[in-house]
Amino acid sequence: MLISSETKFRGRIVTGNVEVVELPNGERVTLDIIHHPGGAAVAALDGDRRVCLLRQYRHAVGGWIWELPAGKLEPGEPPLATAQREIVEEAGVRATHWEPLGAVISSPGVLTESVHLFLATGLVPATQQTEHGELLEVHWMGLAEACRRALDGEISDGKTCVGLLRAAGRLGM
Amino acid sequence: MLISSETKFRGRIVTGNVEVVELPNGERVTLDIIHHPGGAAVAALDGDRRVCLLRQYRHAVGGWIWELPAGKLEPGEPPLATAQREIVEEAGVRATHWEPLGAVISSPGVLTESVHLFLATGLVPATQQTEHGELLEVHWMGLAEACRRALDGEISDGKTCVGLLRAAGRLGM
Repeated sequence: MLISSETKFRGRIVTGNVEVVELPNGERVTLDIIHHPGGAAVAALDGDRRVCLLRQYRHAVGGWIWELPAGKLEPGEPPLATAQREIVEEAGVRATHWEPLGAVISSPGVLTESVHLFLATGLVPATQQTEHGELLEVHWMGLAEACRRALDGEISDGKTCVGLLRAAGRLGM
Repeated sequence: MLISSETKFRGRIVTGNVEVVELPNGERVTLDIIHHPGGAAVAALDGDRRVCLLRQYRHAVGGWIWELPAGKLEPGEPPLATAQREIVEEAGVRATHWEPLGAVISSPGVLTESVHLFLATGLVPATQQTEHGELLEVHWMGLAEACRRALDGEISDGKTCVGLLRAAGRLGM
């Protein structure tokens, strides 16, 4: 139960609050809570079971990392609509078939973000359109190879590892 | 390349900055960056291949979730030391054998957090000691069942899904 909340930081994407909470056991704690709108990420698979992976520059973690196409939810936007927008803009494809793969929680001690995962198949070309400040290369990699890298730690982004492994699980790989 | 940084929020665990960055392509962007010390999480396996999973109350995500024992790095602390401390405090066990399972990045658009994963075996009992504000139950679940739940989405915490699936991969399951 939320006792009080004070906003300390209003950023472009996140809001930082100090919140006083009563836990179910009656204890009161003061927490830093970073509010995030949540997001959607897509394992887009072509007819050869290759998955779209972005090589993306991420200042927060100091460099280039592998990521599934993903984006944050706009206000009121259903996660599937976010996912459908992002694979066009980032991967340059549309998909005719969509399956939800559940959500992944990013960092439950401090961040409210949950990322909705999808498996997208039946791909057709579309016009890629990256946003200002997005620096990325589009790659297509065999899903089995991508899963091997998620397990090895060579792919380390959380939503990406979980999205790849759930996609492979769904396909019985 | 960091051009400028202004701290807007100093919390107990995280610090919120507005940072102006020059990307490798020369473009300048302004980003909300939440600095986090990073953490460690442990897949602790007993002799029957059951893994320790906490049922933990997390205000940031609105309720009880499944998580591997985990904690944040203290200043200058090697991730293995964090992992060794946390399985005693949270799971009430020590381990004689440790293997690194790579890192997982929590939310690379906004958060600097990276969580170092470990597989711990050769478990012996120790005295559990939860901290103020931690509300959790200790469970032990077959690793295969836990992986099934990570793939189904019933277990949704990112570090937990990746830690479970990498542990199973390491054991050839």
